[in-house]
Amino acid sequence: MTKKQIDEAEPDVDFVERMRHTLSHVMAAAILELYPDVKLGIGPAIENGFYYDIDFGKTKISEDDLPKIEKKMRGIIQRKLPMVRREVSRNDALDWAIDGGQTLKKELIEELPESDKITFYDMGELFTDLCKGPHVENTGECGPFKLVKVAGAYWRGDEKREMLTRIYGVAFESEEELEEYLKRQEEAKARDHRKLGKELDLFTFSDLVGAGLPMFTPRGTVLRDVLANYSLSLRQKAGFSRVWTPHITKVDLYKTSGHYAKFGDELFMVHSQVNGEEFAMKPMNCPHHTQIFASKPRTYKEMPVRYMEPTTDYRDEKTGELGGLSRVRSLTQDDSHVFCRSTQIKDEIHNLVGIVREFYSEMGMKLRARLSYRNDEDKYLGDTKLWKSAQEQIKQAAIDNGLDFFEAEGEAAFYGPKIDFMAEDAIGREHQVATVQLDFVQPERFGLEFVNEKGEKERPVMIHHATLGSIERFMSVFIEHTAGWFPFWTAPEQVRVLTVNDQVEDYVQKICSILSGVVLEKPLAHNELRYTVDESDESLGKKIRRATEMKIPCVLIVGPKDAEADEVSIRLRDSEEKAKLKDLEKYLKGLK
Amino acid sequence: MTKKQIDEAEPDVDFVERMRHTLSHVMAAAILELYPDVKLGIGPAIENGFYYDIDFGKTKISEDDLPKIEKKMRGIIQRKLPMVRREVSRNDALDWAIDGGQTLKKELIEELPESDKITFYDMGELFTDLCKGPHVENTGECGPFKLVKVAGAYWRGDEKREMLTRIYGVAFESEEELEEYLKRQEEAKARDHRKLGKELDLFTFSDLVGAGLPMFTPRGTVLRDVLANYSLSLRQKAGFSRVWTPHITKVDLYKTSGHYAKFGDELFMVHSQVNGEEFAMKPMNCPHHTQIFASKPRTYKEMPVRYMEPTTDYRDEKTGELGGLSRVRSLTQDDSHVFCRSTQIKDEIHNLVGIVREFYSEMGMKLRARLSYRNDEDKYLGDTKLWKSAQEQIKQAAIDNGLDFFEAEGEAAFYGPKIDFMAEDAIGREHQVATVQLDFVQPERFGLEFVNEKGEKERPVMIHHATLGSIERFMSVFIEHTAGWFPFWTAPEQVRVLTVNDQVEDYVQKICSILSGVVLEKPLAHNELRYTVDESDESLGKKIRRATEMKIPCVLIVGPKDAEADEVSIRLRDSEEKAKLKDLEKYLKGLK
Repeated sequence: MTKKQIDEAEPDVDFVERMRHTLSHVMAAAILELYPDVKLGIGPAIENGFYYDIDFGKTKISEDDLPKIEKKMRGIIQRKLPMVRREVSRNDALDWAIDGGQTLKKELIEELPESDKITFYDMGELFTDLCKGPHVENTGECGPFKLVKVAGAYWRGDEKREMLTRIYGVAFESEEELEEYLKRQEEAKARDHRKLGKELDLFTFSDLVGAGLPMFTPRGTVLRDVLANYSLSLRQKAGFSRVWTPHITKVDLYKTSGHYAKFGDELFMVHSQVNGEEFAMKPMNCPHHTQIFASKPRTYKEMPVRYMEPTTDYRDEKTGELGGLSRVRSLTQDDSHVFCRSTQIKDEIHNLVGIVREFYSEMGMKLRARLSYRNDEDKYLGDTKLWKSAQEQIKQAAIDNGLDFFEAEGEAAFYGPKIDFMAEDAIGREHQVATVQLDFVQPERFGLEFVNEKGEKERPVMIHHATLGSIERFMSVFIEHTAGWFPFWTAPEQVRVLTVNDQVEDYVQKICSILSGVVLEKPLAHNELRYTVDESDESLGKKIRRATEMKIPCVLIVGPKDAEADEVSIRLRDSEEKAKLKDLEKYLKGLK
Repeated sequence: MTKKQIDEAEPDVDFVERMRHTLSHVMAAAILELYPDVKLGIGPAIENGFYYDIDFGKTKISEDDLPKIEKKMRGIIQRKLPMVRREVSRNDALDWAIDGGQTLKKELIEELPESDKITFYDMGELFTDLCKGPHVENTGECGPFKLVKVAGAYWRGDEKREMLTRIYGVAFESEEELEEYLKRQEEAKARDHRKLGKELDLFTFSDLVGAGLPMFTPRGTVLRDVLANYSLSLRQKAGFSRVWTPHITKVDLYKTSGHYAKFGDELFMVHSQVNGEEFAMKPMNCPHHTQIFASKPRTYKEMPVRYMEPTTDYRDEKTGELGGLSRVRSLTQDDSHVFCRSTQIKDEIHNLVGIVREFYSEMGMKLRARLSYRNDEDKYLGDTKLWKSAQEQIKQAAIDNGLDFFEAEGEAAFYGPKIDFMAEDAIGREHQVATVQLDFVQPERFGLEFVNEKGEKERPVMIHHATLGSIERFMSVFIEHTAGWFPFWTAPEQVRVLTVNDQVEDYVQKICSILSGVVLEKPLAHNELRYTVDESDESLGKKIRRATEMKIPCVLIVGPKDAEADEVSIRLRDSEEKAKLKDLEKYLKGLK
């Protein structure tokens, strides 16, 4: 075959992905030997590994069954069976599926377009699968792997079809990589925000309220508010004013904005039983904000106009996709919109990038940015010259800010170029977080305008920005990033005072009168100290254990000797020290 | 007739109400003389006056027509026509309506229960109306009156029926009272929060978003936040913790709480297009808060548990009833819930009443309270002994707080006794504001419990409380109460610096560096000064006018002489003075 023929037959895929794909076939072959009656669905390579969706009939498969399957797989790998691709006719393919009782494969074959070539992969004589490939040469090339999880998955992702069993494996080229990955997974599991959310009493769900609708307890609400307020304070310094808009709107708003045509069937619709009026819950805030901008005549003197609103949007996610705070139906955005002149784009982006950098630097997360531009396709709306100028201004702002960035042509939204930020957490995972998006379309659709120096009407450009993105999702990242050991200024309970015995009541009062006056001013201003006192008559050991379980960053231990010496014993996460009472306020203000 | 017979025939109604009712008949008679073809609907006495709903056919009536009707009315009053009640048979009544072409009256007669006596009132021989009465002896007894407004009103309040014309009149026993009332109305008009909301750029509505769904501009949002934060800060001091709950819920929550059976058809229903799930928008927050309380086991040691949440509820008000911020569909409550032991009721109520007193005293509004108790009817749920004890604890808390209160038996909610607060504004109008409501039913329905000292499960009592009530409604009251001259600490823009000419740039910077460091600590802590600078090259007179139009409480005027003397000229609403720059911060912190 020529190079071109090879490319057509087997898409150019790197070795590790081929190997992972082969492992999914190896797993299917092993399972077929162990459970001859199963029906196979599909088995792709994915990030870090592979899976196969399988109908096990009445047999229940659990993680206890995985070692047995793994063992079988290792046998197949040792045999170095060749992976051979062949084209088959539609009829032969169907016969193969019917003869094998593979009804799911039959369905797949029937739905392949007539024009498509049908290809099989043989694994020696052991196993054949309908597959586009590509694979490695033989099963011996498969790297170290491990089966890690059993889950349910609807056939073809359709909630109305049968529930199959999905078995996940992970695989890498070297043992070191696999071990590194598994270790990181262990770490991630210990940091799981759903687990920590419960242990640290941050949020809760109720069956009566519904999936994807978290409720935040007092501790979780403090964390929420501290993070949201910090984001607000950075934007306030940068000239943003807070606005407030309702959570519902007539659909007319989204018909005008264009969202209705594009996303109309993803809206939560709201129905008035009183008079039959139809509303929608807002899935974003920009159209509402245009209405505040449009509420009075504007001149160039007041441009740019900058609004911010931390507000909850509602998106109709599928129940199966909801998980803890990572994906919710009620997502609170720290949303901002700038209405500016086209010549002000660079300064505004500079402004916004500065906010993002300050926020994530404070969070201890490394940032990477993607600058998304248009390409030559004609799907982009708005003036080409404006696009060009805007893209240049974006890039200049990225350079001026010393951003670690890369450029991606053809990744812009149809309404304007944008910057997407990725933040790296403490265990090396990257999360999509902040965005800065230009928008040339909504100002047009809503007929927004201001009067310029010449007395003419001019159209503003809109810039969408969120620093955290969704507060709920950011909290999930932040809880896992910190493993629940929140930085001092963000901790729901920052200080807990533990008494050694009941002879220190007066001294504890003296300490509390100091604590109640402590207000942290950095990084968030006016941040009043949150403290409690554990005066219960349990043992000190038990009190300390309880404070550690709740990951209280600063524990003050107070006994008669401390009272005599006018000092407190301080227990931080990794160290212990003493401080004089007169230095306590300063000490606390210095904690990170 | 004996006394009893009189009472049965004519309910005991005070003179002024009878007189107002008679005036509605006098107006109908006058209108019939001027417009013989009209059809009369109903015409009751109301607070301060009366109205009549009338079908004028194709004739359009405006306020310009009122003097002519008034003149006719005065003629009828002078004739001192006797108002005489008589019983008529159903057939005679129907004949009267049909002969007079009074189709609306005919409808009313047809719908009267068979058992009801039908009564007419004759006004001499001039005019007869279907009416239960009572009236004054003759039209000569009618006091001074004025017709004030023409409005539309659906026949029988039904949006599907014909739109009638409602003419409103006001009437009092003396000219002084009428004039006093009209003067107060004029004053109220000048203070109308819808007018001021526009002039001071506080909030806006959009046809695309919908009626009853206000959006708050930067200035309005500051006012909103300052008021809400003050309410939060008072409750935080009193031991409340902030929580957060979503704006929607599965209806299961309201089926459990009992709200669905009672108010189910008033809910905004939310429909998932993805999987057909049904949700409702929350019209109140208590059921959500029970789910946070129930999210973990509780012991007596943590009681009382106190939650607060400023959050937006949605109520499906009829479009015709919406007006400015007084009645909206999106109402943000400064809601609080206490879960306490029955022995803790008095202390908790005391706590809450203290918050209410402090808030309204700061707002300069006089409070009056109604204590609503149960009576002997059996509609009340919950243990009778608990009711008795709770009512005694409420009364004691009211006395201890020196409240101006009155007691009302039979006014309690079915789930518990309550206190309703009325606040009097600057022009003497009383507004229902805060509430404190006990609830013995929801803890039962949600199976809430905590473990007491004996290790037994005990049921908590719930106390609902809102200090402002709805923030939107309170803003409407507050804007009218202050006529837009907001107290210094609440003003969206507290200080505006006006330059006399362009030679003071450096000095203005010096002033701004002082202003940017000013943080008010009372009554709301951490309240950063909000100021702007008007350096435009317009005349000082124009700048001052603009600042006065926006009701900026403190204007600093800065010219070269001020710079030389290191001082500023200060212009308050009613006075002017000078301050040295070094005293400026202290001066501003002292402003009310």
